[in-house]
Amino acid sequence: MNWLDDVVFDERDLVTVIAQDAASGRVLMVAWANREALAETASTGQAVYYSRSRAKLWRKGEESGHRQQVKEMRLDCDGDVILYRVEQGGGIACHTGRESCFFRRLDGDSWRTVDPVLKDPDLIYRK
Amino acid sequence: MNWLDDVVFDERDLVTVIAQDAASGRVLMVAWANREALAETASTGQAVYYSRSRAKLWRKGEESGHRQQVKEMRLDCDGDVILYRVEQGGGIACHTGRESCFFRRLDGDSWRTVDPVLKDPDLIYRK
Repeated sequence: MNWLDDVVFDERDLVTVIAQDAASGRVLMVAWANREALAETASTGQAVYYSRSRAKLWRKGEESGHRQQVKEMRLDCDGDVILYRVEQGGGIACHTGRESCFFRRLDGDSWRTVDPVLKDPDLIYRK
Repeated sequence: MNWLDDVVFDERDLVTVIAQDAASGRVLMVAWANREALAETASTGQAVYYSRSRAKLWRKGEESGHRQQVKEMRLDCDGDVILYRVEQGGGIACHTGRESCFFRRLDGDSWRTVDPVLKDPDLIYRK
């Protein structure tokens, strides 16, 4: 799969990935991927990332159920950022239970939370 | 300006910034910012980044004329990615003369350029 050779990975063999809702255009989250995560995303159509904290592949939604179906993958001009255009399962991408991780807006001298919690994280991640 | 204290800068004192067209929702580009770049962006309403290659502030459009008027700044849940929602001057964010830096789409086993060049870069950056 030579398309992976066009991706410019950093010194940790990772690339930045932005997930965007394909329907609304909302920027949902930013995470990392390695070569394996990109390959699996392309082959399965389900968004896969690499979790630096857990040091392993992170199949988005494996705990929360909020999977991302990838409609399109794009690469930027420098080759070091990937865009996943997704259909967001449950309409929730953020671990806080919000649609997007970008729920704080600069308002004067402070960040103000402007998006609602759609589902209590305790209910999303209950064991 | 204590809002800057909520931003999680990396070991190089930089934070990832995504620029998104506020009207179309198109993800335009990804770059870096330092504390100074964010402060100037917030105070002037014009997108400022930090150029790693040139090791200085990069006032978007200072060469190309394609400035970005920042309508909104957002911070993600981890505090380490900023979203600029912008009005893109000239409708061109990419140095290749395209609207967006994400002009290559994965098509089978290769990246295919799917967005047109709107203006010849030689005309954008002529001395």
